[in-house]
Amino acid sequence: MDKLRIGIIGAGRIGNVHAQSITYHIPQAEVAAISDPDEPRAKALAERLGIPSYTKDYHDILNDPAIGAVLICSPTDTHAAIAIEAAKAGKHIFCEKPVDLTIAKILAAKQAAEENGVKLQIGFNRRFDHNHGRVQAVVKSGQLGKVEIVKITSRDPEPPSPEYAASSGGLFIDMMIHDFDMAQFLAGSPATEVYAQGASLVDPAIGAAGDVDTAIVTLKFENGAMGVIDNSRRAAYGYDQRVEVFCEKGMAAGENDGDTTVRVSTADGVVSDKPQYFFLERYMDSFIAEMRAFVAAVTENTPVPVTIDDALSPVVLAIAAKQSWLEHRPVTVKEILANG
Amino acid sequence: MDKLRIGIIGAGRIGNVHAQSITYHIPQAEVAAISDPDEPRAKALAERLGIPSYTKDYHDILNDPAIGAVLICSPTDTHAAIAIEAAKAGKHIFCEKPVDLTIAKILAAKQAAEENGVKLQIGFNRRFDHNHGRVQAVVKSGQLGKVEIVKITSRDPEPPSPEYAASSGGLFIDMMIHDFDMAQFLAGSPATEVYAQGASLVDPAIGAAGDVDTAIVTLKFENGAMGVIDNSRRAAYGYDQRVEVFCEKGMAAGENDGDTTVRVSTADGVVSDKPQYFFLERYMDSFIAEMRAFVAAVTENTPVPVTIDDALSPVVLAIAAKQSWLEHRPVTVKEILANG
Amino acid sequence: MDKLRIGIIGAGRIGNVHAQSITYHIPQAEVAAISDPDEPRAKALAERLGIPSYTKDYHDILNDPAIGAVLICSPTDTHAAIAIEAAKAGKHIFCEKPVDLTIAKILAAKQAAEENGVKLQIGFNRRFDHNHGRVQAVVKSGQLGKVEIVKITSRDPEPPSPEYAASSGGLFIDMMIHDFDMAQFLAGSPATEVYAQGASLVDPAIGAAGDVDTAIVTLKFENGAMGVIDNSRRAAYGYDQRVEVFCEKGMAAGENDGDTTVRVSTADGVVSDKPQYFFLERYMDSFIAEMRAFVAAVTENTPVPVTIDDALSPVVLAIAAKQSWLEHRPVTVKEILANG
Amino acid sequence: MDKLRIGIIGAGRIGNVHAQSITYHIPQAEVAAISDPDEPRAKALAERLGIPSYTKDYHDILNDPAIGAVLICSPTDTHAAIAIEAAKAGKHIFCEKPVDLTIAKILAAKQAAEENGVKLQIGFNRRFDHNHGRVQAVVKSGQLGKVEIVKITSRDPEPPSPEYAASSGGLFIDMMIHDFDMAQFLAGSPATEVYAQGASLVDPAIGAAGDVDTAIVTLKFENGAMGVIDNSRRAAYGYDQRVEVFCEKGMAAGENDGDTTVRVSTADGVVSDKPQYFFLERYMDSFIAEMRAFVAAVTENTPVPVTIDDALSPVVLAIAAKQSWLEHRPVTVKEILANG
Repeated sequence: MDKLRIGIIGAGRIGNVHAQSITYHIPQAEVAAISDPDEPRAKALAERLGIPSYTKDYHDILNDPAIGAVLICSPTDTHAAIAIEAAKAGKHIFCEKPVDLTIAKILAAKQAAEENGVKLQIGFNRRFDHNHGRVQAVVKSGQLGKVEIVKITSRDPEPPSPEYAASSGGLFIDMMIHDFDMAQFLAGSPATEVYAQGASLVDPAIGAAGDVDTAIVTLKFENGAMGVIDNSRRAAYGYDQRVEVFCEKGMAAGENDGDTTVRVSTADGVVSDKPQYFFLERYMDSFIAEMRAFVAAVTENTPVPVTIDDALSPVVLAIAAKQSWLEHRPVTVKEILANG
Repeated sequence: MDKLRIGIIGAGRIGNVHAQSITYHIPQAEVAAISDPDEPRAKALAERLGIPSYTKDYHDILNDPAIGAVLICSPTDTHAAIAIEAAKAGKHIFCEKPVDLTIAKILAAKQAAEENGVKLQIGFNRRFDHNHGRVQAVVKSGQLGKVEIVKITSRDPEPPSPEYAASSGGLFIDMMIHDFDMAQFLAGSPATEVYAQGASLVDPAIGAAGDVDTAIVTLKFENGAMGVIDNSRRAAYGYDQRVEVFCEKGMAAGENDGDTTVRVSTADGVVSDKPQYFFLERYMDSFIAEMRAFVAAVTENTPVPVTIDDALSPVVLAIAAKQSWLEHRPVTVKEILANG
Repeated sequence: MDKLRIGIIGAGRIGNVHAQSITYHIPQAEVAAISDPDEPRAKALAERLGIPSYTKDYHDILNDPAIGAVLICSPTDTHAAIAIEAAKAGKHIFCEKPVDLTIAKILAAKQAAEENGVKLQIGFNRRFDHNHGRVQAVVKSGQLGKVEIVKITSRDPEPPSPEYAASSGGLFIDMMIHDFDMAQFLAGSPATEVYAQGASLVDPAIGAAGDVDTAIVTLKFENGAMGVIDNSRRAAYGYDQRVEVFCEKGMAAGENDGDTTVRVSTADGVVSDKPQYFFLERYMDSFIAEMRAFVAAVTENTPVPVTIDDALSPVVLAIAAKQSWLEHRPVTVKEILANG
Repeated sequence: MDKLRIGIIGAGRIGNVHAQSITYHIPQAEVAAISDPDEPRAKALAERLGIPSYTKDYHDILNDPAIGAVLICSPTDTHAAIAIEAAKAGKHIFCEKPVDLTIAKILAAKQAAEENGVKLQIGFNRRFDHNHGRVQAVVKSGQLGKVEIVKITSRDPEPPSPEYAASSGGLFIDMMIHDFDMAQFLAGSPATEVYAQGASLVDPAIGAAGDVDTAIVTLKFENGAMGVIDNSRRAAYGYDQRVEVFCEKGMAAGENDGDTTVRVSTADGVVSDKPQYFFLERYMDSFIAEMRAFVAAVTENTPVPVTIDDALSPVVLAIAAKQSWLEHRPVTVKEILANG
């Protein structure tokens, strides 16, 4: 079997992650080319992993007939446009999240993929996490009966710069979007309404920039379940990523991962590992797993496990949450969709 | 030193708990008399624990000059009136929660205690729980810096009858009231606003009776912190009582108590104990501890650790939560207090 | 039903523990009298718990016809003689361990109890510990199949004085004796051979006094299982009491008990409680439970759960272990019994 | 920098593991050739990983001047002879354990490496395990003071065939050898004496073949510490790999690794993951880490972290343990070395 030849658009942090996953862990595929407007960055990655070709212009990748699939790892505001171009070029697409911050552009990308018959998978890697994935599998199996409460704790180890917070769309968009996806994934049902509470408790500059750094959002799901997500931009003890699903017949819940299981007992107490530092440590296996799933979807022509519809819904929820916070009232998904 | 002679008004479940705590665990006090309108119930308790006197009329206790303190363990709607009578009779008072479901009556009880110079402690026993109490102590010590997020999970093992749910004031009043107290205790600050989400997921009859059996309530505190409480009337795995306080420099969190630390490992997995069944198992030590604190406050003339002000605030929050749920909007404490 | 009237011989630490258990936790019995050669000590205990009678001479207890049972809590070297006197006086007997350090005296006590038709229970309280007891129950239930390896960790928080170590018979006798009982209890089979390794690592003065303060002993059981016990006189982190039974179909194991389940997470790690300090903290419930079992055996005329035969065997193993250590070779129970 | 070119001798399970580690995880090296008497096996591995050359005769590898290092992954009885040949050919050597079952051959390999100035690292991969390695690091740091007790539990998920048990030298040699290395690694001191207890509890055929399948071995270390290892050929719940080091000022201990941290709570209890199945799951990271260390030792010309002396000592202890078991007495290392 020939390997799937993949082009990666964007040689930043996540582009590097995927390039490495494919090179070292997915024998069914290979990275054929890498592009980045910052050409030396593309070159450096190409050299580090033995990627045969690099370019500053991603059109070189789209125009290469030997390339079967592309990974869109460029800045968010370019995702949708590139996805549409890639679809037209007949490339299968793996696109990082969020696909876009506007509903219209997400739908345009969806349409382009459908019209051109290419696969389009979205990078909600946390679905592939060993802990979260297990919780979902247990719930989905039905052994615990119907879902009643979904709880997600998601806290970063360190706050971003206030500039980033301002430009990214803010916490509800750039950070909680993952949790909105996870919440629906775990509930097995779309969310219909959110209520958001937020404040700037970590860094006043984030508040001054018009954003929050700490938030609690409650959700209602179509299947009757309820949910709550809490986010903080700064957990002193590391990256805090826990989910809990409470059901009719029991509960499935995951704890954080530490580096070891070692406990040191002294007169001062029993000390164990704090959570792994950040997403590159905690979620590395999930990045590999999502890429493996994408390659399998393309090479075996099976449906992608995370669709463009999965991408749309968290953006809508993020917009609704931000509006809820600004207007100090519960906001429905329906209302956001009606306002386009 | 003479023992503090205590009269217990109400020989139901909680009256029994306190009678037993005093008899077996608090050598500085003794139960001198027990009253219950159901006289055989009072008699049975008196005989079981060797209490010298029982009566169907609690006025016999109030009129007994040898009795220094009373425990009000009667139905909720009688608490305030009996507390006022007891204050006028010069008895120190331990009153079960909720003191009353109306703000006016709670304030009347407060006034009576103040005017008559008697101590008045409220039965928020969970503050004395080894786990919750430790979390609060760690937070209060300041070692973790300022509080940012308070999370409380509180789920009963089995739902009450729909009749009870209807007559008790409902989940926000009879169940979440404990959690409102705990939330403020942990946050070290009063709550100023709530938003409640609730549904009848466990038993449709509870919904038909106009109540919810599952709820998530978010809170804002005066000190800027945020909180969330989730309640369910039925956790298949037992009484789920966990608290978590996330702060500037770290987090303190308590897990449930099981009966043992034993783990059984087989080909099917590793099985450990589920949480202890219900409040009599989980909180028995806290009932003893709160009673010990009350006896000490009386005999050593020190302030009571849980005041009537502590009783008022959770009732206000419960009323606010119910209104929030009914009106589908955030409700402030100020608004409830303004409406009396 | 009349309460069982109990006399306690010895008002030291363990006498106090049992007096308190009966007074506060066992309504079916009462402490009628307490004796101690140090009369003020007996008086102090009597006053603290409202015991109606105290004496310096335990014969006053044995001669009191209203007393149905005695607890022998005097120094070890008086146990057997007092037990024989008590049996002749027709009192049911609860005797602290070790009954004696010589096989002959233990057998004499056994004979006296049998001849006089009195019950004789031995104070191996750890069998009643919630964790150890659960492990044994799981193993005994047969769900894990046959026992293959029994492991016991038993470490005290602080070393005794070298004088005590010398006079007590040493670690194998005064400390490991509990573990020999536990090992056989868990294995469900008598031990047949031991091999002991020991050293003075904690306090050289203990070594100078001819004893060890750290030891590892391996065992063979009649049913084919193997075992290992490790003891230390000093665990910096508290009282370390863990058991593990490895079987054909799985393993049952208990961890230490902490005071709370609270975990504090900071940049320095996650800190949880160290084990409870010592036996009064860890095993208090087991002292109550063994006393409850003794009272039930007497009042309901059922067999005692820990017999004099259970007392003999650990002493034989302790003697064998000491000999093994001294002679640097495995020693059989048979050999010790043959040498009487 | 040019990559270190490595030849692998033996394309069995462990040869595959190392080939994969180098190919996917160690950019500083590459597998240049693979040999196996079973040529199709060598070919299959070469094709799977893109290794440029394969052969049935390892001499082809030794004769290739472009190859700088070899991994000896052939059957145990060929290790020493190949190591000597490789040393003479000037190749740096990574040799799987045990190097040999006779002391003389191990010393011959040592001598050959020294005379030819090549590095010789031994495959005690468990030293590189995240949990065991952390325990050792904590102990070695000195923060817990001197070591007193080392405890190792090491149990396989399934027994080997009786034929294997017979031909491998038996449990003490083929299985406990890892634990002897670990014990000395953790104690920070060589062992001087062992006492072994063993039985055939899992499979009578293993006993019939003259071996044991369950064993407990106690150790004395030169620094005064004591140790105990327990082994079983069959743990129903998976691969049980735990170490515990008890020291003057505390204890460091590692638990097993599960696949997830998920706990499922139901009316039947709380179920968490059993240990990972076997060494390929549990120790995969340690195989990569040891290979990375070997490559670094060669390319940076630093000492290897596991030396041939580290290989000798566990073999001596294994021989001593077997003799102890056969002769039913403690056996010293000195005695074994004297008998050569």
